[in-house]
Amino acid sequence: MDGVLADIYAQYFRFETMESGIQRSREDMTGRPESEVFRNIRKYVFTRGFFRDAPVIQGSCKALKKLNAQYELFVVSSATEFPQSLNEKHDWLTEHFPFITWQQMVFCGSKAVVHGDIMIDDHFKNLDSFNGKTILFTQPHNSGLPDNHHIRVHSWEEILKILL
Amino acid sequence: MDGVLADIYAQYFRFETMESGIQRSREDMTGRPESEVFRNIRKYVFTRGFFRDAPVIQGSCKALKKLNAQYELFVVSSATEFPQSLNEKHDWLTEHFPFITWQQMVFCGSKAVVHGDIMIDDHFKNLDSFNGKTILFTQPHNSGLPDNHHIRVHSWEEILKILL
Repeated sequence: MDGVLADIYAQYFRFETMESGIQRSREDMTGRPESEVFRNIRKYVFTRGFFRDAPVIQGSCKALKKLNAQYELFVVSSATEFPQSLNEKHDWLTEHFPFITWQQMVFCGSKAVVHGDIMIDDHFKNLDSFNGKTILFTQPHNSGLPDNHHIRVHSWEEILKILL
Repeated sequence: MDGVLADIYAQYFRFETMESGIQRSREDMTGRPESEVFRNIRKYVFTRGFFRDAPVIQGSCKALKKLNAQYELFVVSSATEFPQSLNEKHDWLTEHFPFITWQQMVFCGSKAVVHGDIMIDDHFKNLDSFNGKTILFTQPHNSGLPDNHHIRVHSWEEILKILL
């Protein structure tokens, strides 16, 4: 969800600018973990509204609707580390992706417990241990790093080309 | 979680008695779905506090602690149907099972997306499609019904005998 459907970087930028006035560009953070770039990230992700107000990643809604018509689709999100995010993520999904039913939502800690045929994610830690086809969604933290045999994409349009 | 760690029947009884004074015994409901027995069940499970205040099932805490030391353990709970339950279930687990970390929690709709070696559950719908060993925890709704090739147990002591 974060970094694939929800534009979580936009929130990092916004929270950091509000707090300290820092203005960054996405290029500044190529290949660097978010926690290294944004010094107070732990504070932001535990702040009420951080997940609820995230913008939707371009093209994700239209693309997921199409995939949902042809695939058995689940939205799996790491959430239990930030308990306040559970309801925020549920409400965010319900607002922006109303065609995703409660049966299709999974809020977890580790994604190791999830299986399926295809996983789309922006983190190597989730993709590397997955037992099916893996699609790496490009985000600054994974940019410029080796793809680890995952299929790298830069947009939802590319994902549709692969999966439809 | 419900019907295996959390005594959800105790809550059904309590809510129904509070509402209408009805006093039932567990024998009344042998082999009958909860939704058939408790007429206003949909109201109860959407009520604030229903999941948060559930008693802990006898022996589950001690047993899970022992299993947690020897197995890679996840607590998987159907929760997204009742959005208010997400935080309640998280807080309930954290209070009663403090050794279960956020990495080990999964709140979902359908358990079809979960894989593993062993599943302990009280519902056939979850066990029947699981790809590993399946242990059926006896509850009134599944009592007297065929076991569908699952290992039926009546207590956590029995589970420990099988798994340790």
